[in-house]
Amino acid sequence: MPVGTQGTVKTLSPDELEQIGAQIILGNTYHLYLRPGQELIRQAGGLHQFMNWHRPILTDSGGYQVFSLAELNKVKIEGVRFQSHLDGSYHFFTPENVIEIQRNLGSDIMMALDECTTYPCTMDQAIESNKITLDWAKRSLNAFLNSQPLYGFEQILLAIVQGSTYEDVRQHSATALVDMNFPGYAIGGLSVGEPKEAMFEMTDVCTKILPENKPRYLMGVGKPEDLVEAIGLGVDMFDCVMPTRNGRKGTVFTRSGPLVVKNATYKGDFKPIDSDCQCYTCRNFTRAYIRHLFKAEEILGMRLASLHNLYFYLEIMFRARKAITEDRYQSWKREFLELYKSNNDIIT
Amino acid sequence: MPVGTQGTVKTLSPDELEQIGAQIILGNTYHLYLRPGQELIRQAGGLHQFMNWHRPILTDSGGYQVFSLAELNKVKIEGVRFQSHLDGSYHFFTPENVIEIQRNLGSDIMMALDECTTYPCTMDQAIESNKITLDWAKRSLNAFLNSQPLYGFEQILLAIVQGSTYEDVRQHSATALVDMNFPGYAIGGLSVGEPKEAMFEMTDVCTKILPENKPRYLMGVGKPEDLVEAIGLGVDMFDCVMPTRNGRKGTVFTRSGPLVVKNATYKGDFKPIDSDCQCYTCRNFTRAYIRHLFKAEEILGMRLASLHNLYFYLEIMFRARKAITEDRYQSWKREFLELYKSNNDIIT
Repeated sequence: MPVGTQGTVKTLSPDELEQIGAQIILGNTYHLYLRPGQELIRQAGGLHQFMNWHRPILTDSGGYQVFSLAELNKVKIEGVRFQSHLDGSYHFFTPENVIEIQRNLGSDIMMALDECTTYPCTMDQAIESNKITLDWAKRSLNAFLNSQPLYGFEQILLAIVQGSTYEDVRQHSATALVDMNFPGYAIGGLSVGEPKEAMFEMTDVCTKILPENKPRYLMGVGKPEDLVEAIGLGVDMFDCVMPTRNGRKGTVFTRSGPLVVKNATYKGDFKPIDSDCQCYTCRNFTRAYIRHLFKAEEILGMRLASLHNLYFYLEIMFRARKAITEDRYQSWKREFLELYKSNNDIIT
Repeated sequence: MPVGTQGTVKTLSPDELEQIGAQIILGNTYHLYLRPGQELIRQAGGLHQFMNWHRPILTDSGGYQVFSLAELNKVKIEGVRFQSHLDGSYHFFTPENVIEIQRNLGSDIMMALDECTTYPCTMDQAIESNKITLDWAKRSLNAFLNSQPLYGFEQILLAIVQGSTYEDVRQHSATALVDMNFPGYAIGGLSVGEPKEAMFEMTDVCTKILPENKPRYLMGVGKPEDLVEAIGLGVDMFDCVMPTRNGRKGTVFTRSGPLVVKNATYKGDFKPIDSDCQCYTCRNFTRAYIRHLFKAEEILGMRLASLHNLYFYLEIMFRARKAITEDRYQSWKREFLELYKSNNDIIT
């Protein structure tokens, strides 16, 4: 899912997202709640109308941003009090009002408010935090069941597994949430600084418990190689700013690995970013031109790189789905990773 | 002509420019010469290939930028020595090498190097400067006739009338250039700080001399009302950064005048920028959404506003052409200006 933090996937138009085959985009409840605010979006007829995006939208719960962006945050069992990173104003998120906000936004897929542990945290902290997240999940479900969609289409609610890097806590979290019978589950609290092995280990712990016939969503992941690995562990959905954020900074993804296209190496390189890619950028523009745009600080450079990167990510998912249905995922994954590691540009 | 200073019309893709009906775009010789350089563009197969724009390109002579942007500039009869605004390096433009650069760029319409007087300047300065410009026009024509296009299509060369705000000097300049028989003429050195009446007076002086059956191009103009006025004086072509620069700053043009769409007034305004406009922006997005994008510093805001503004400008030209062919230009102009003055947002 391309990330549309503030009601727009950075640098791109809804038309372009449709053309590259984006199916769901993500909106950030925390950001949209602060600006332009749920009232304005409700007046606009919901986020779909407001931003002119007529395919599904998933909104996160705001939890992650409250813990990573807000100036101050204080968790009580009732909810979390925080200060806006924009103007320092005070706000209070509860499982209940986060459902209400997401009703006003009108996202197709809503997320239950969770407490996202930082990495590292002690096992006691993880257990304590998980208790709160499970309580909030139950309250979210109640609030969801006791409220109605506003714009004439159904909304669903997913819950988020937490538990840091502790297998027991993850298992407890996943099992308890499965008991509440959500229509799908996210794996949260990963990709927050832990070693990559721990991330995959915890993902594996979760997907072993989360039902196969419901969507499993690994939040905030990741690099192309991470997606391919996690899909192998049974993950169905991802969101990540990597393709757009890297694109805006002049790094692009190719079948043979990432390229820092604004580097001097590509000054006179008249090949497309990826010769096998069919996106608008690769069909029409060279690395030399895109590098020039970055050097000249022209916005079209960011657009073309973001568009290509999202296309590349969506194509990974498309090809992974195909390989799965044709029962050849492991061999496809091996080939993908082998080729992907052949380029030398290092990105962070 | 939308302005594509550095090989891109700011924020927009070539596809979008085609869709809004742009016929010619302008490239700046000074900027492209400094970055990415004529050698690279030649290697790319010319500017059309480099930027993937397959309709006509006009390149200016670089004169205006040398006099307005470069750190230092010193005019001799041979040419003008200047320091790059990018890195302070020294360069020398002559009528001859400016033709060579434009051959390398492969623009369809090239401009002869001119000296652009500042405003105000004395009559003596204007006469002296005009002497140089006329000499350079002759040398440009010789260089043009003694060189060949590089990419298999014809290029033409236009000359630029100078003379500041002095009727006699303008007449002398225009007459002398007409004698050299260029396929079209530009009116330069206006819109540089002189009173608007002087601009139209000088335009009128020039168009009375410049042949009706060849294109007449008023450089660097202007606001919608200026275009409409100048068309009434016989001008055929314009270039101006107004639609794109204003768009990037959150000002949009409508039939009833400009709007500063990022103003708080439009916070809850769910109408399109211009209800009668058929552009992508107006068909799909509200003022409230575009205002949100500007407040949140999202690039899509600049894109949507630039796209609309260029569409609006191109439509003025389209409607003006239609009114002329239907012999009702004066009445169309009156109606346009009356409606255009009805909105109150002030822009500079």
